[in-house]
Parts: sequence; structure tokens; C-alpha cells
Amino acid sequence: MKRSPIFLATDFGAGLYAGVLKAVIAGISPETTVVDLTHDIPAQDIGLGVWQLRAALPYLPDGSILLAVVDPGVGTKRRALCVDCGGVIAVGPDNGLLSCIAKDKRATVHAIENPEYALPNPSAVFHGRDIFAPAAAHLAKGLAPSKLGAAVKDMIEAEWEQPKQAPDGVKGVVLAVDRFGNLQTNIPSEGRPAGATVTLDSTRLGPIRRTYADVEEDNLVVLPGSSGFLEIALRNGSAARKLRIGKGATVFVRDPK
Amino acid sequence: MKRSPIFLATDFGAGLYAGVLKAVIAGISPETTVVDLTHDIPAQDIGLGVWQLRAALPYLPDGSILLAVVDPGVGTKRRALCVDCGGVIAVGPDNGLLSCIAKDKRATVHAIENPEYALPNPSAVFHGRDIFAPAAAHLAKGLAPSKLGAAVKDMIEAEWEQPKQAPDGVKGVVLAVDRFGNLQTNIPSEGRPAGATVTLDSTRLGPIRRTYADVEEDNLVVLPGSSGFLEIALRNGSAARKLRIGKGATVFVRDPK
Amino acid sequence: MKRSPIFLATDFGAGLYAGVLKAVIAGISPETTVVDLTHDIPAQDIGLGVWQLRAALPYLPDGSILLAVVDPGVGTKRRALCVDCGGVIAVGPDNGLLSCIAKDKRATVHAIENPEYALPNPSAVFHGRDIFAPAAAHLAKGLAPSKLGAAVKDMIEAEWEQPKQAPDGVKGVVLAVDRFGNLQTNIPSEGRPAGATVTLDSTRLGPIRRTYADVEEDNLVVLPGSSGFLEIALRNGSAARKLRIGKGATVFVRDPK
Repeated sequence: MKRSPIFLATDFGAGLYAGVLKAVIAGISPETTVVDLTHDIPAQDIGLGVWQLRAALPYLPDGSILLAVVDPGVGTKRRALCVDCGGVIAVGPDNGLLSCIAKDKRATVHAIENPEYALPNPSAVFHGRDIFAPAAAHLAKGLAPSKLGAAVKDMIEAEWEQPKQAPDGVKGVVLAVDRFGNLQTNIPSEGRPAGATVTLDSTRLGPIRRTYADVEEDNLVVLPGSSGFLEIALRNGSAARKLRIGKGATVFVRDPK
Repeated sequence: MKRSPIFLATDFGAGLYAGVLKAVIAGISPETTVVDLTHDIPAQDIGLGVWQLRAALPYLPDGSILLAVVDPGVGTKRRALCVDCGGVIAVGPDNGLLSCIAKDKRATVHAIENPEYALPNPSAVFHGRDIFAPAAAHLAKGLAPSKLGAAVKDMIEAEWEQPKQAPDGVKGVVLAVDRFGNLQTNIPSEGRPAGATVTLDSTRLGPIRRTYADVEEDNLVVLPGSSGFLEIALRNGSAARKLRIGKGATVFVRDPK
Repeated sequence: MKRSPIFLATDFGAGLYAGVLKAVIAGISPETTVVDLTHDIPAQDIGLGVWQLRAALPYLPDGSILLAVVDPGVGTKRRALCVDCGGVIAVGPDNGLLSCIAKDKRATVHAIENPEYALPNPSAVFHGRDIFAPAAAHLAKGLAPSKLGAAVKDMIEAEWEQPKQAPDGVKGVVLAVDRFGNLQTNIPSEGRPAGATVTLDSTRLGPIRRTYADVEEDNLVVLPGSSGFLEIALRNGSAARKLRIGKGATVFVRDPK
């Protein structure tokens, strides 16, 4: 039987927590391929988890299982969910993390509550290992989501910090800084009018370009990032280090006069 | 033939060293699935290596190969070992790292000394690549451990820093800090009497709870961690950052009067 | 059909970028095993990319695909290349990163320009995802490199900073520091005369040893590293921390008088 791959997306960082998820899956479904999608969601940051999952989702093959864990409410009555959108089936906590998958019109949601598909005696602090990984492994083996628990109609939704429309443009923030020191904003690249100019805090950055090399070395550049949002970079360097700016800095895209 | 997966557990951190182990294994046993269990054991810390392996061991499927490398004595006369406990077969240096596997009553130990199952001309500085990875790959292909070398009866044992019993409770330390800023102690969760109270250095933490959300936001909480030891956390934050406390801090669990 | 494994070598660090490469490959060639070789090449450092690839290359099994991305010129007219040396087939940008693969006498080079083997509408900022990963996935499925584009005879070559011969020895630098605090130099271990002595900046390090334990605890030691270059270490500690020295420090290996 063809097995679905499981993609892991967590805020666990480097280390044993992600490794143990893989051990649990290997124990239940040894034939399943497990892929590290990201373990670098900022700790406990559900909004940025949604943002990362939204960036990855178009690239997950149909039939994939997505095991997503950012779970500050572990051990409380927050539900465990399985969201099946036909293409991808995702499991994770009911705290909004799975919002972008649930936006698919085909999506159906079930609670994960059948102890038959969890580890025995689940802990109150690590449901990734004890609940979500076993559920994902059983789904990868072909289990129907409806076997996991009752249908859910009121799952929690969440999103990352959204930009605000202003009379003369749009105001956003830096959501994240990548390893290259590129500043990733929450302002969608699409829909910016030709001739718009960008300001970061008090630094004027000029017009929106196409790629890094459209400016000279060591110059700042604004461009459409790889996930559909404007990004601010320093050619052959780190914008974050040069500007001493990080997460939370204000970005303004001013419409041309 | 069904191949056993190989789990990697090292102190190599991110980077090429772990990647090269996987390349070596792929060259010898291309069908074997290789799983990163952890590369985040603190550098050269055998005791914390044992601690991490002990936490992972219950989740490794029977038939797994564990390739464990924390190896400050590489290139000396310290032996290379294969510990077969029936369920899991582990390879690694004879410095105590494999103690928890060897605690299994079924465990048999062999030296790894047959050059047929190592890379030619092994270096004196990277036995992970030159000795342990090839041995693991051959074991994954079905090699009997006894083919690797002579039986060993006196392997070295090691453990992490152990807590001390006191007249009025038990005294331990913070062994590690995870990505969430949770402080992981060496005090087993089991056996703490109801009504026990916990002190961290000079900070009083109150009774032992069940999960993070059992206290209000931004409050400290002591609870049974996911691997059987008490853990100190800050709800929705980082205990390590709030307390400016890390590895080595003193923890005292006082019996009720 | 037997599928070739794909090894990933990038400067992406931890996080989603590498994960998305794997998702793209899984979508095109679900049977292909993908292996993280390194994502820890220093950001945008082509020379150190060549250095890491050269260290890994002898361990990649014949038939492997190497997907290598260090790509400061993404989105410009720099070409995308496929270098086939018979043993390993590599894809990556034409900026010198693939120099060590191309040194193989059998190597043939093709441009990657056929849009049939790329994602539709490739971005100007992430060719790893949009061009190189799809090309690698198709190669892993058996595509002939010549299908990707025209033969190339003038690929760019690059190397890491090279040591300089002096009348009384050889002068090099520290290229990198690993997780153990070991200083990795650009001076080949082979060819150092017996009795040569080593100086690091102004610190005299004595003769070249064989392994870490050839000196007492907490002492500095120079030895042949695992990839063919001299390495400076502190037994059971971090040379980088002890000496407060890192990348770029000067190393001199003086011939005996």
C-alpha cells in the first residue's frame, strides 16, 4: 500500500522533542516517510505558526499528512483536531494553528479523542508525542479521520498580525528575520501600486524591486519575498544587522502621489 | 528483506558532521531509513547524553539501531561497543554513553573491532563517520553483533548528576534548559509526596502541578516533565529568562511537615 | 526502479526554507529519499560552501544527486547548472559552488533552463525551491542531465581562501569553528614535515599530534582534522572560547630548522 508522507511543523527547535515524534511514528507506521518541514516556528507563537504553514502549504503534495504542534494549552481542555481538506490532512491543537488548512472549502474537522489511536496514559505536557504523532501515524496508514472522534464545527481560528490600510498606503510590521538577516513583513506583495515607496521605521527604502541584485552591494532593497510578502534585504549582507532592526519594526508602503 | 531504521543521537549540533554519517550509511545500506533523534546533546557531555537516550529509549521501535556518539576519547584506546538488548541494538563509544541500553537484562555487549565493517584507514578524530556509522549500517542490513568483535563484560557505566536524599526532602539540580526556557531537573517526578513544595535557588515555587495552564499567565509552575523528571516552567513564557537561571541551579523538593 | 537519494547542502540554516525544498521534491518524486547533508554553510559564503562540499564528496554514494544552494546572485542572469561526474550529479547556481564536483575528469556540465523541469512561474528570490529542487527531483527519477539544457563549457570556479607558502613554512587562516570550539584551518594536513611547529596568532601550539587525548586535559592541541586540514582544539573544552579566537585568525606552520 502506498503510504502518505508526514510533514512535521513545530516550535520545538533543535533537539530530542522532534526526534521522539519520529520514533513514535516509526513504531506505529514503519513504512511512512517523515519529513522535517520546520521546527523553527517561534516558541508558542501561533500566529507565526499559521504564517509558516500558509507559506508551505502550496508545496505539500496531495495526500500528505501535516503534523503541526505549537501548543501552549497542552494538558488543558483545548481539543486536539484533525482537519482534512482532501489534499492535505493536518493534525494539531485547536488553537488556530490549523486555520490556513481549514480555509479550504472542502475541509472537514474531527476531534482527536479516541484513545485507541493515542499512546497509553498520555502526559499532560507533551501531546505532540502522546496524541498528535500517533494520530498522524495512523492517518498515514490509511485511518479515516472520522475514526478519531466527533465532527467539529467550531474550531478556533487565528492569524498573524495583519497590516492596516491607511489613506495614503498600507502599514505593516516585520514579522520575522531569516538567517540571511532579511526582514519579512506582513504586507502582501500583490496589489502594491507601481511607484509605491517603502519606509522602515524612519529609513526610506525606495521603490519595490524584483531581486537582491537590483541594487548595488551593501544597499538595502525591498522586494517580493518568496512567500507572497514584501521583504527587506541588504544585498550580500544582513539588513537586520545593518539597521539593528528586527521583529516588530514598522513598515509603511506609501502609494504614489 | 525488512531493514531496521537507524536513529542518530550525537553532540554534533547542526552541520556537516551529522550529514556525513548519513552519507556513509547510505553508501553501505541504501535501503535503510535514517532518523535524526537528536544532535543536541551538549558537547562532550556523556551524562546528559545518557539522560537524553534514557528519555528516548521507550519510544524506539523494537528492531531499531541506535547510533550514539558523544566521544571525547576518540582516537585513544577506549573501545567501540555494540550493545544488543534484543529490542534495540546500539553502537557507540565505551565511555558510559550506552549505559541505559545496557541496563536491559537481555543486553549483550560486543566490541567493534573487525576492520571489515569500518571505513578503510579510520581517522583518529571522527569515529562516528569511520567506525560507528559503518557498524550501524551493517547491523541494519542484518549483521550479527558477534561478527563485530569479541564479547565485552566490563563496559564503562555512567549516569547524569543524581539527586541527593536529605532528611526533609530531596535536593537536585537543573540539568538542562529547553527551547521554551523550561528548566529540566534531575529529580524524578514519581515518588514525590502529596503536599511537597519546591524551591529553586532562593525562589519558592509552591506545590507540584499537572500542566502549564494550572497557574495564571506569567507565573512559575513546577510539574512532571515529559520524561519522568520535575520541570520548572513559566506559563506562556521562559522560566530561564525570567529567573536568569540555567543549568546547575539548585532545586529542593521539601516533604510536607 | 531504484531511485537515487538527494543530498541537500545549503546555507539556509534551521527552518522552513529547507523544509520546502523537501516538500517540492516529495511532490515530484515521492519515492526519493532526501538527506540533510548540511544547512549550515555560512550565509552566502561560496568559498566555505566549496570547502564543506569537498569534505562530504568522498562519502556520497555513487548515483547520488547533490542539491547545493548558496546563491547570492539568485534572480540575476547567473546560470543554473547540472554537473554530472558519473558518480554524483550536482545541481546548483553557476557561482563556483560546484567547483569540487566539476574537478572530476569525467564531469560534464549542462545549464538548467528547460521550464518543463522547474516549478511554474519561478520567483526571482528562491531558485532553490523553484528551479534546483525540481531539477534534482527529476534527475532522481532518472532524467538525463542533457534534457535540462545546453552543454556549458565555461562554468565559474571558486575556492576557499588558500594558504600561502613562505620561506620557512606555510601561512593559513582559521576558516571555521565547529560546535566543539575546534578551529578548522585551511592548511592541508598532508605534507607537513616532521618536527613542524604551529603558531596561532601569537600563541605557540607545539608539534602536530594525532588525536585530542595526546595532550593533557585543558591543553591546546594541533592535529589532522577529519577532512584533511589541520585543526586546533582544546582537550575536553573549546579552543575558540579559551583563546577568544575565531574565523580569520592567522595560523603559521613553521618548518623545523
